[in-house]
This record gives sequence, structure tokens and C-alpha cells, in this order.
Amino acid sequence: MKALVYLGEGKKAFRESPRPTVQAPTDAIVKLVKTTICGTDLHILRGDMPGVAPGRILGHEGVGVIDEAGAAVSTFKRGDRVLISCVTACGTCVYCRKLMFSHCVHGGWILGNQIDGTQAEYVRIPYADTSLYAIADGEDEEPLVLCSDILPTAFECGVLNGGVAPGSTVAIVGSGPIGLAALLTAQFYSPAEIIMIDLDQKRLDIAKRLGATKVVNSTDGKAQDAVMKLTGNVGVDTAIEAVGVPATFELCEQIIAPGGRIANIGVHGKPVSLHLEKLWDRNIAITTRLVDTVSTPTLLRTLRAGKVDPTPLITHHFPLDAVVDAYDTFERAAVTGALKVILVA
Amino acid sequence: MKALVYLGEGKKAFRESPRPTVQAPTDAIVKLVKTTICGTDLHILRGDMPGVAPGRILGHEGVGVIDEAGAAVSTFKRGDRVLISCVTACGTCVYCRKLMFSHCVHGGWILGNQIDGTQAEYVRIPYADTSLYAIADGEDEEPLVLCSDILPTAFECGVLNGGVAPGSTVAIVGSGPIGLAALLTAQFYSPAEIIMIDLDQKRLDIAKRLGATKVVNSTDGKAQDAVMKLTGNVGVDTAIEAVGVPATFELCEQIIAPGGRIANIGVHGKPVSLHLEKLWDRNIAITTRLVDTVSTPTLLRTLRAGKVDPTPLITHHFPLDAVVDAYDTFERAAVTGALKVILVA
Amino acid sequence: MKALVYLGEGKKAFRESPRPTVQAPTDAIVKLVKTTICGTDLHILRGDMPGVAPGRILGHEGVGVIDEAGAAVSTFKRGDRVLISCVTACGTCVYCRKLMFSHCVHGGWILGNQIDGTQAEYVRIPYADTSLYAIADGEDEEPLVLCSDILPTAFECGVLNGGVAPGSTVAIVGSGPIGLAALLTAQFYSPAEIIMIDLDQKRLDIAKRLGATKVVNSTDGKAQDAVMKLTGNVGVDTAIEAVGVPATFELCEQIIAPGGRIANIGVHGKPVSLHLEKLWDRNIAITTRLVDTVSTPTLLRTLRAGKVDPTPLITHHFPLDAVVDAYDTFERAAVTGALKVILVA
Amino acid sequence: MKALVYLGEGKKAFRESPRPTVQAPTDAIVKLVKTTICGTDLHILRGDMPGVAPGRILGHEGVGVIDEAGAAVSTFKRGDRVLISCVTACGTCVYCRKLMFSHCVHGGWILGNQIDGTQAEYVRIPYADTSLYAIADGEDEEPLVLCSDILPTAFECGVLNGGVAPGSTVAIVGSGPIGLAALLTAQFYSPAEIIMIDLDQKRLDIAKRLGATKVVNSTDGKAQDAVMKLTGNVGVDTAIEAVGVPATFELCEQIIAPGGRIANIGVHGKPVSLHLEKLWDRNIAITTRLVDTVSTPTLLRTLRAGKVDPTPLITHHFPLDAVVDAYDTFERAAVTGALKVILVA
Repeated sequence: MKALVYLGEGKKAFRESPRPTVQAPTDAIVKLVKTTICGTDLHILRGDMPGVAPGRILGHEGVGVIDEAGAAVSTFKRGDRVLISCVTACGTCVYCRKLMFSHCVHGGWILGNQIDGTQAEYVRIPYADTSLYAIADGEDEEPLVLCSDILPTAFECGVLNGGVAPGSTVAIVGSGPIGLAALLTAQFYSPAEIIMIDLDQKRLDIAKRLGATKVVNSTDGKAQDAVMKLTGNVGVDTAIEAVGVPATFELCEQIIAPGGRIANIGVHGKPVSLHLEKLWDRNIAITTRLVDTVSTPTLLRTLRAGKVDPTPLITHHFPLDAVVDAYDTFERAAVTGALKVILVA
Repeated sequence: MKALVYLGEGKKAFRESPRPTVQAPTDAIVKLVKTTICGTDLHILRGDMPGVAPGRILGHEGVGVIDEAGAAVSTFKRGDRVLISCVTACGTCVYCRKLMFSHCVHGGWILGNQIDGTQAEYVRIPYADTSLYAIADGEDEEPLVLCSDILPTAFECGVLNGGVAPGSTVAIVGSGPIGLAALLTAQFYSPAEIIMIDLDQKRLDIAKRLGATKVVNSTDGKAQDAVMKLTGNVGVDTAIEAVGVPATFELCEQIIAPGGRIANIGVHGKPVSLHLEKLWDRNIAITTRLVDTVSTPTLLRTLRAGKVDPTPLITHHFPLDAVVDAYDTFERAAVTGALKVILVA
Repeated sequence: MKALVYLGEGKKAFRESPRPTVQAPTDAIVKLVKTTICGTDLHILRGDMPGVAPGRILGHEGVGVIDEAGAAVSTFKRGDRVLISCVTACGTCVYCRKLMFSHCVHGGWILGNQIDGTQAEYVRIPYADTSLYAIADGEDEEPLVLCSDILPTAFECGVLNGGVAPGSTVAIVGSGPIGLAALLTAQFYSPAEIIMIDLDQKRLDIAKRLGATKVVNSTDGKAQDAVMKLTGNVGVDTAIEAVGVPATFELCEQIIAPGGRIANIGVHGKPVSLHLEKLWDRNIAITTRLVDTVSTPTLLRTLRAGKVDPTPLITHHFPLDAVVDAYDTFERAAVTGALKVILVA
Repeated sequence: MKALVYLGEGKKAFRESPRPTVQAPTDAIVKLVKTTICGTDLHILRGDMPGVAPGRILGHEGVGVIDEAGAAVSTFKRGDRVLISCVTACGTCVYCRKLMFSHCVHGGWILGNQIDGTQAEYVRIPYADTSLYAIADGEDEEPLVLCSDILPTAFECGVLNGGVAPGSTVAIVGSGPIGLAALLTAQFYSPAEIIMIDLDQKRLDIAKRLGATKVVNSTDGKAQDAVMKLTGNVGVDTAIEAVGVPATFELCEQIIAPGGRIANIGVHGKPVSLHLEKLWDRNIAITTRLVDTVSTPTLLRTLRAGKVDPTPLITHHFPLDAVVDAYDTFERAAVTGALKVILVA
């Protein structure tokens, strides 16, 4: 089969690779129908994650069809359409038993990282019963691709951890795909205000169309002032960090109201300065999280009920064999306007 | 009357001061029976809190007797014995209406800070109905002095925010009065392990007597290793910071288990380094809090039911007119072994 | 002044009554601008609440203007426009200190019940600081009348207690004003389905317009079957009882899914049969509640942010001196189609 | 092998039965070391549960050793000592994915009910990875037998659902084994008062030794008065029903404080009268639950940490082949004083 293979820092190729096979009775082989590229894939390519070995097939999102199910897979059979979770859950370890699948002793985020991933014609999914979700008959696959990672990540790490509530005030720092997914899912809870902050006016314009009540272009370095002004100098109840650099996290520290919550989504490569000299008495909470995908059933229900439509986040389509072009388009988002790029296998 | 007056950085005197009077119908004047000194008082004296004006009577803890009640005070009358909360709550502002008394628009921590405090023969308590608690007939005043600040602070900022739970593993960094109060109140929830960490072996010995299951003397700079070893290399579910310097906060970052909570109690004067490059995917929460004293009724019930006995934290007694000596004893705790020092008015 | 006075079972009159005066320094006198009639007022008139003494001015909802503020009222002054909460909170008792204003030792639901109410030109509001809410400049009073009682009641007793959540399934039994208010506020949480159940098709038609995803006319006595069919034979996650008779409560028992919550709003006059022989192992919760109005600030924020519009519940307007006609219209709702009737003072 | 077989209403025999074998790759065969008898077994024998077919081996509790593990069992191997959960969890169904194992589509309470149980030399445990718990080397098996059912049932259905909290007031109606287990585990949360209510003074005496702060002998039919007197006429914050008949549930209704929680543990065979005419405005919650055994890891940690000692609940020991005598002793508890009876295989 063909797959997108990581070949070491800065190098990748779409090339012939061995087709995966069932290795454990709990495995399933999924034939990909649609997949996508995540910002984390770019991190890997930049060499930021040295744990990823050259030769690895990238990708941890997608929908497909069961091609083969191991003997102990009870929920799915050949021919079933499935959504692939970006997080693999064994379902039996100490972390899975408390629904913290992200830290599954045998799984977690391993696809396209510790084991071969989904930017391929076929992928092996360990613990298929607890790592795949059934797609209903006639259900459109396109929005489901966004349920592999981006929607649960934004919802769990940003919205749920941030405690977004009716009538509350939310700021989302970063209007990229993940920030926009937070914007979409924050609206499940009817906050009074969602203030979107970014450097890119085009992304802010999209945010406005997708439900942001206010936008702040932080190009002038005065985002803190702008948010404080918009909130009567109180700050926001929830600040969602959706970038992953010190400056954006520290902006969250500056705009959080007493009693508020800073919910980190960003993948950080450096320490940040936590201003406890200002925050020790502010009654705030800061949360971090690798998505557990424990909310996936909830998200599927909201999607099916029409409570959220993530398809505006999809800006481009490519056939899988144009995946290298797709990476290029995704990487040059500032120019191409790319948010999520669908690869059709 | 006589009172301990702050006279600017490094200076204080026990001297004649005007007796307070009712200024608003919601005020009460309390004649002190017992009061105490807090580590924050030392901070003020060191000049760390420039907002405290010279001339201020210090102190925010104590028990006493109502000497005069304003016309709108409905709960208390002259002669009633009362516990003074370190936090003053107007009961009507937006923060009080959500039980976040610490940020009361008209109150908060103002005693011995923005208005004259309790290290005096008399003190004016604004919003008496919502800032004082009745003492039962025949009830011993001594342990109640510790309910003004230290017990609710340790319980709310450390134990409740830290989510201490049956069977969980807790580390408390700092075995001073506040850390020991966290140790006492953490036991309300029957954690499996409470690991106490400090540089002072005498304080660790006290911790052992008060319920610590393990103690770690961090003099060797290897506390992280010790805690990881004690927890099977997993870390602790709850890390309570009870010192207020970067090193102890960062130790909490190093020993927190996936899914754990770092509950800050310490008063910090500097930023700390938050290692998001290690913590972004650890599913942790960090909390800060100025005590709300919203748990005071709960604490009084546990105290009265014999579920907690804070009196071992009381190491010294002085008459109020020896308050300067009491400060000296309290400040030189490493030598004197002082934890809490009771001043008898 | 003129007021609507209860004169014993079945009797009432709009007649001259003494204008209320400040009796305690925490009182305010409010000149009514708009008020309304509640189903509970009808209960009183039917003699169902013998605790209400003849001579009592009825009514516990409304907006108005401060006419006089007692000496200890700090938040409001003469001329301020205010929303009157149906629940009076002293702000200092043991229940108020845990935000359970409904059981305030000195207040609770006393307006138009234990003390004279709001269907009058003026009303005395005890504990004004904690029982009134400021109306913003230029803010429309009309929807605010529904924030005195019906919105917080539906939201707290039904939606919050019922744990309505994104993607969940909700049934609301009773499509009268309170059931419709539950329908409106349930949508704050983006449930997948809201099934509205009633005998009156007109009210169900209104429910459909206001967001019900399904309606069930229970005239045929087969509502249980209908709901089970609509939910794939699982039942609903939340069942909100908004009628107050045994049959509707027992319907909730029949349609609740394992792990679900039955949230009672109805005012019941008789015991109901709780089928523990079927429910003991269903992992359900049943809640009851007299509204605390603790959510009023939240509701005001959602209203001001346009997240809810309760005005479709207002079907009729009368001048205050036509209050007897208004009662007639409200009481014959099946014929008149009345939901909420606004009285303009 | 030998096993205790249900032979229809009122009939049972300890007789030769086929030794179970692995039927699915997720099964394990456990050789029993110790097991016990539950009140539910008596219900089955009385014919109260017609769904249990004659020929069924009874029992759903016990500890043992893995005799054979199916090919897909990854956590356990032959020779491992294990605790058997009374609830079987497939780990993959919609209920297991939200930790509601009691309603597992493929499991739930099936042992000794829908499939053969543990009062036998060997038992087949489906979904072994998620239905068994490892016993540590050298760990005493005796107290663990009580972790199969009675401790998690009392803790989850009574203590957790009842919201027992530091300083709160608890009443437990029924001082049998399950009520006493609730008494033991309620103490994890340091309530101020635990009032134990029963007709049997001997059981109340045991309750006093195990931590009850007050006991009420309800033989005189005046338990309500007694509890109201003990609580200053307020009632209790938590009422735990541990009997399963209408009178004891209705007693809970009578003694619950405003804002309180009634947590049902009892297995009920009849409806009860829910006095909504008194409770509709009392802000209470009522919960029911079949144990999920989701707290088993927590309970094991508390047990290992010495935070609870359930062994005083063990009153008798019998060899497995005297199981018929053991039933007799357990059934005549009023005479024999039996609480839990251990069967040694």
C-alpha cells in the first residue's frame, strides 16, 4: 500500500509501505476513506518530537471501513464504517478505568507516533473495541474526520476544562483550527461572550462567522488592554490557550478574572512564566490535558442532532496520493487560508 | 486601648491607639479575648506589602466578645462570643453572591491590612453578620483562634482545591503551621498517603505525630527522587504548596501524577517557571486561592465533633501586652520551635 | 394605593390598601412598573395554601423603581430600577450562607404569601440588597418580569437539577409557562433532543416553535410508549416534571433512562407512588427544589447576551387596575391561550 | 466439582456440577479460595427473583486463583490471585464507557443470577480483565471478600450517592451487613454525626463499636422523633436506606433536612409512597443505584492503607462443603448474630 512516511527531521515521502496485519486479537485493520493532517504532524516533521522514529507512517485521524477484525474484537466486523480515535485505549488499565484514556498504559496517543498512523491506505488499530466508533448508516464521513482529534481536543481540553457556562465570558487565544473548534464547542454552553484573539485577521473573520461575539487582533501587542476593556476591566471567566507558545499563555494569565480558569490546549515546547506573585490570591485554576476522547460519544450525538457543524473548518480536499501537496497547503496556512485539509483515500 | 501598630518597614510598637467605634450600621466592635500572629504579618513588617500604611494595627485572627453592635447587625448582640473571620464579606456584592468572599468588593482580606486589625484590645468588624461566627456556650476559645485563618486557608486552598480523596496520595510541601493545618484537614478525606516535605526535621517529626504517613527531609535537594520512589514512580494525586517560593512550587510540578492537582497555598513574591513543555499533556490542574472562609461553618462542625484537633499547632502563649516578644518568638521559629503563638488579651 | 387582596378561598378584590412603609433598615419600598400572575396565586385562591391569611396582597414577581430605601440598604437608592426576586434572602442565615435562599430563615418565598406581595402599586421588599437586582439603563422591563420566578424556577429546579447536557435527551412533562421556560433554558446546554409532553396541542405547537425537537400529545394515555419509541426504548437522560400531579410524576418514572435524573418542578398536593421495585437498580436521581434564585445573575447575563428570549411566553397585557380580568384570562388558559399575563402598573 | 445449586423456590443443594470452562477468549476460570453469602441469595431462594433459573449456581462474591485464562485475557495469568467483582463489565459498551458497569450491556450483575456463580469450587468470569482485581503478594484474602460487593455497594450507593461530607449529619436506616458497611465507609469523609437506626439492639451495639455516634432503636415506632430530636429538629444531611421496605424508605423521607440526600441501597419489592406534598420544596435528592464497582480500586487502596477494616463484619466461617449450614446460620441472623459468613473452599 501507499503511505506518508516520516524520514527524519524535515523529510517525508508518500511511498509504498507494507500493509498492516492483525498482530493481536484485539486489533482491527481499517481501510481509510478520509484522513487529515494535524499541526502535531508538522511538529514531528520539524524534529520537535525526537521520540518519533524515521520510517513511521504519520497521521492519527480519519474514518474508514473495517477490513479485518481480530478474533477478540466484538463490536466491529469487516465492512463496518468506523471513526478512528486519535487516542488508543486498552480499556483495562488503571487510567482507562478512570476514563483517562490519554494516559492508557498500552495506548494513549500512539498512532502516527509510536506505531504507524492513518495517512495511508490501511492502518492497524489496537484495542479496536475501545478505540473506534461506529458510523451510522448513511452518515456523512466528512464532519466525522474532525471528531478524531480536533473536536474532542478543543472540547475536552478547552471547553470542559475551562468550565464554559451559560452567561459566562470566554476568551480563546488562537483562531487556528483548534481554537475555532473550541469556539464551536464552547457554544454548547451558551456563554454570553466569546472573544477570539489572533494575529491573522482572516482567521478572526472566520471566527466571527462561526460565533465569536468579539475579535481582538493582537498584532499591536495590546490584546490584554483590549480584553480588559471588553470585560469592564474584570477579565474573562475562561481563557483557552490554543497556540502553545509562552506569549499566548501569559496573555491568558493577564486576562483571567478572579475565580476564572485557564484551559491550555496548546502543545508547548518551552516553560512559561507563571506570575504567581499576581495570581496566588486570584482563585484561578490552570488545566492541561492531552485529549482523552472520552467525550467522543457526546460529540457524535451533538453532531447528529445538528448542534454543531464543524465542516466550515474544512478548507481543502486532496486525494491521498497528493498528500505531499496537502502538507504544503496546510503548512503555508497564512497564505493558503488552510484550516483542515481532507485527504480522500 | 493598646494595640500592635505597624510603623513602616521593620518597625512596630505596642502602643496606645484610639478605640474603634461603629462607623456603619453593619459594623460591630469586638473586644478581643485571644488573637495570634500570622506569617503574613511578618511579610508586612518586612515591607513586602507596600499597600499597608504605617499606623495600621496588624492582625486578622482572633476570638472575642461583642462590645457594640451597629443598628443593622441582626445576628449578634453585646456580650456574644464570636470568632472573627480573617476575610470580611459584605454578603451582597457579585463575589459574595457566589461565595467568593475573598474578592468581596467591600471586604476581602482587609483586617490588619486596609483597616485596623485584631492585635489590639478592640477591633471594628465591618459587615459583622457575615464576617463573624457565633461561639457556643462553654466552647473553648483556644482552638477557635485557628479557625480565623489557618484552618480555612489550609482546607480551602490546599485540601478542597487539591481534591484530596479517599485512597489518594498527597504531598504537602512545607511543614510550617499552614502545611500542618493542611495535614490535619486532609485527613477528613482519608487519603492513603500524606507525604510531608520540609527542610526542618523537627517540623517533620511533628508532622509524623499529626498523621503524615511519610516524611521527606529535602535538605539534600533530592525531594523529587524521594517522592517518586515513595509513589512507585507515579507521583502524587495532590501536591499542596505551603511555602510560597519558586523552588517549592516547582517541586510540586515535578512530583505531580498524571491527572493530579497542584494546590497552591503559599504567598508568592516572584513568578515561577511553569514547565508546560513537560506538563501540557499531563492532565493536571493548578489552583490558586485567597481563602474565602466559606468552609468555616464546616470546620466548626468538624471541630465540635472532635474530627480535628488543631491545638497541637499552638506552641506558645503570651499576654497581649507581650506581643512584641511573641513576634520575636514566632519569627525565630527555627530556634524556638514556634508554630502558632496565642496572644491573650 | 390599590392592590389585589386575597379574601379567603375563592375570593379576591382589587381595592384600596395601606401603602407599605420601611419597617427595617434593610427594607426597600418598590413602586411597581410591571408584575404578573403565577400559577401559585391560583393555588392560594383555591384555598390549597391555608397558611396564606385573608387580607394578604398577592404576587411575588415584578419589576419596579425604588421609592424608598432603608438606612442599611447599600446597593440601591431611590429611583433605581430593580427586578424583584420571588425569593427573599437575608444573606446571613445558615441557608443563605450556602446559597439555598429558598430556605432562608428570615425570608424564602414570603412575598404574596407571608407578607404582602407585588400585585399592587407598591411593595415592601425586606433585605433589599440581597433580594433585588439592578436593571441596566435602557434595559427593557418586559422580559425581566419573567426573571422574578418562572425563568429561575425552570432553570434551577428543572434544567440544572436535571443535569441537562450537550447531546443528552430531555423530556419535559407539561408545556405550560413553567414547562416552556424549562424548554427555553434547557437549550443553554445543547441537548440533542427535547421532547415536550402535554394534553394541549396548542401548547405543544408553541413548544415546537420554541425549540422542542419532538412533541407528544398525551391525550391518548400512551405517552410512555411514545417516549420510549422516540428514544430507541432507552428512555430520557432528564425528565422534568412541570405539572405537579401524581400521573405526570409517575410518567417521569416510566421514561427515565438508566443513570437519568428526574427533576421535579411541580407543586404537589398529594403523595406519588415511587416504583422503587423497578427503580432501585436504575441508578437514577430524583430532585425537588423550591427555587433559590441563585441563578438570577446568570439568567440576566444570558438574557442580555441574547441567549434566551422569554417574551414569547407573554400572551396578554392588562393595566394593573384590570387585574381581576387578568386573573380570569390566566385561569381560563385552555380557552384564552394565556401563558404569562403582564400587569402594567 | 461441588457447588451450591438453586433448585427453585425454597430449594437448594450442594452437589456435583460440571466444572466451568473458557467459552470466550475474554473469560477466566477462577478457583475459589473464599466466598460468602449475600442477602440477595436469600431473595433468590425465596423466589423473589423469578428470572433466576433452577439449576443456577449461586454466589457473586469471592477471592480465588486464576486456573485458566482465555487467549484475550491480558492482565491475569494462571496462578494469579484475584478478587471477583460482583458486577461483570465488558469494558466496551455504552454504559461501561461511562463507568456505569452495573448496566453493562453484556454484563452487570450476572454472576449467580444469569450465569453460574461463586459458591462453587470454580467459577467462570467473563470479561476477566475488567471484572477481576489483582491481589497483592502476601495480602490477606479475608477482608477482600467484602470488596466483591458489600463494601462497594455501601460506598457507592450509600456514601457517594449520599454526598457524605466533613461535618455533615448522616442517618443510616438498617444496621445489617450493608448498613454497617455504609457506616464504615461513611467515615472516610469525617461526618460530624452518624446515627444508626435498627430494630435489633445487638446490631446497634456493633454499630456503636464501629463508629456510630448515635443509635436509635426503632422498635417503638418513634425513630422520626428521635432523629429530629438528635438533630435540633433539622433532620439529617444524608439518609441512607439499607433495608429495602417501604417503612424504612419513608422514614428517610421524614428525617431528611432541607437540601439533603436520600441514598437508597435497599433492594425493594414494592412501591413506596413519596410524599411530594411535603418534599416538593425541600430541595432534596433521592438516588437509587445498582453498584457499579467503579470504586473498587479506591476501596482497595483505603483497605491497604488501613483506612478501613471490614473484618468485624465477618462473624462466621464454614468450609465450602458446609455451605448449607452456612446459609442456615446467615438466614437466622437474629438468633445467630451472623453478619457476613465466610466460606472457605
